[in-house]
Amino acid sequence: MTVNREIHLASRPDGWPTPENFRLVSTSVPTAGDGQLVVRNVVMSVDPYMRGRMNDVKSYVPPFRLDAPLDGGAIGEVVQSRAEGYAPGDLVLHGLGWREYALLDAGSARRVDPALAPVNAYLSVLGMTGLTAYAGLLEVAGMRAGETVFVSAAAGAVGSLVGQIAKLRGAARVVGSAGSPAKVERLRALGFDVAFDYHDGPVRDQLRAAAPNGIDVYFDNVGADHLEAAIAALRPHGRAAICGMIAHYNATEPPPAPRNLALVIGKQLTLRGFLVNSYGHLREQFVEEASGWLREGRLHQDETVVDGIENAPAAFLGLLRGENLGKMLVRL
Amino acid sequence: MTVNREIHLASRPDGWPTPENFRLVSTSVPTAGDGQLVVRNVVMSVDPYMRGRMNDVKSYVPPFRLDAPLDGGAIGEVVQSRAEGYAPGDLVLHGLGWREYALLDAGSARRVDPALAPVNAYLSVLGMTGLTAYAGLLEVAGMRAGETVFVSAAAGAVGSLVGQIAKLRGAARVVGSAGSPAKVERLRALGFDVAFDYHDGPVRDQLRAAAPNGIDVYFDNVGADHLEAAIAALRPHGRAAICGMIAHYNATEPPPAPRNLALVIGKQLTLRGFLVNSYGHLREQFVEEASGWLREGRLHQDETVVDGIENAPAAFLGLLRGENLGKMLVRL
Repeated sequence: MTVNREIHLASRPDGWPTPENFRLVSTSVPTAGDGQLVVRNVVMSVDPYMRGRMNDVKSYVPPFRLDAPLDGGAIGEVVQSRAEGYAPGDLVLHGLGWREYALLDAGSARRVDPALAPVNAYLSVLGMTGLTAYAGLLEVAGMRAGETVFVSAAAGAVGSLVGQIAKLRGAARVVGSAGSPAKVERLRALGFDVAFDYHDGPVRDQLRAAAPNGIDVYFDNVGADHLEAAIAALRPHGRAAICGMIAHYNATEPPPAPRNLALVIGKQLTLRGFLVNSYGHLREQFVEEASGWLREGRLHQDETVVDGIENAPAAFLGLLRGENLGKMLVRL
Repeated sequence: MTVNREIHLASRPDGWPTPENFRLVSTSVPTAGDGQLVVRNVVMSVDPYMRGRMNDVKSYVPPFRLDAPLDGGAIGEVVQSRAEGYAPGDLVLHGLGWREYALLDAGSARRVDPALAPVNAYLSVLGMTGLTAYAGLLEVAGMRAGETVFVSAAAGAVGSLVGQIAKLRGAARVVGSAGSPAKVERLRALGFDVAFDYHDGPVRDQLRAAAPNGIDVYFDNVGADHLEAAIAALRPHGRAAICGMIAHYNATEPPPAPRNLALVIGKQLTLRGFLVNSYGHLREQFVEEASGWLREGRLHQDETVVDGIENAPAAFLGLLRGENLGKMLVRL
């Protein structure tokens, strides 16, 4: 019998997670019941939002359970099917990552076609990551052609797509912040008009230099000083789509920013938090538009790929530390 | 020649303003040029937003100038007209308060009809104050029937109207906070379902007790701990209309709240600052609806009236300290 290895949550982190919060557990490969599939996962996603699920707090998704496998986006190859329409060898997108083999109700799987796009793309640029960037920028923040856009964590999976989609949709100026010279370099290659390293000085000052006339849209992945700087830079009727606040996730004390929140009144700003699962109605339009950009070579998704289920915790910890360029994936 | 007395800004406050920041100046009554009116002001408004204009910072309205009269909403009786359609005795609403006589371009004045509503109403419930409440609640926050609404500074001019309009438009539950037992009592009389005194304990705890199932809409006049409490209480897809942050206006250090801002993501909250001058397109609809409520005795605006231009600074300082019930006005 083949062994199925999976990653369990061994303990809940207080502040920054450590390898000790995870446990590699060997178990047996499941057997499909009626209407079910067993898949061998080929690639899985690690995402910043998973940090929140490691806390035992009520949120929009239930917290991960202790001593049970984590979960998240993954692509698996069907190895056993007792569901109509699925046969061994089929590839499906589903929500049970962090394990080598997964047992799925067929209704919770979505078929992916490797002829249309590389398999990884369904977890990144054509998947939740891409839709997050697209919906947040265009629907939540309502970016219009000719506007100036600032995105934080811009070399990350979502951020790098936000900047590129902004340019493709006619933004006049796109500014990105990132955490290393190499990332800044990459952002320039991806077409960002200005990119800066937030280690080089106060974000507020660097943003003012990058967009002396202010910004219209801020896509927030960081919170804290980045959000404060954006509020200072936003022009009247500016909008911020709040996608993530990675600076807050591992803080044991909440960051004090933004101290300038009262500016939202006089500038009539809108700050709007969002979750991609509220924007499924845009998926079809998004996939069509993004597929076109991909075919034309106008949209790029960097990937940082780690090998082996045993390295999934390290991949996740690296993601939280910003060690990834683009989408962080684990190949199983 | 009649004397015209006016209030000048003598110095810019650092933190809480004091009487020394104001100066009563005697000057002469102006003379109308072509297309102009001279009015004798009968009543003027003092409003929290004026505090911001006392600072020398660029904002949505220019700062008050030093050694020049302050300005703001007022109603004056025409004493001299060189503009077609205006005759002595006409009453007009205009923006040059803080003085006994004002020289106006006729185009900047709006006629008010004392037969339709008491004169003061044009500065309060049927004026900017009422439209602020109406537009903020219904347009900015998009309140729908059946929702739960929380408003801070609820015994103030805007807040008391927000709560009442919420009930009139079908809110299931309206909660208000205020700063004294008498105000809390008044809110109950005005139809608020729950009212509490923010001195009685943490706003967060009192709000949780007042709305155990959370709130859908927050109308913010205070900022700081009130906004933090509201963010904690808002249900998924909740909206906050940010009208004012009086707790911030006189703070020499910005209040640290809200420390829980990251909740906007998972709950998909919208925080939106607004200024009433962006909602002029709602004025006609608002006046029609509010006039009906007033005629039917279903909408009430409390007034705190101070007499004499020399007492206008004291009225304004009292407003900032929350000494008013409802709209604070100065009768000249």
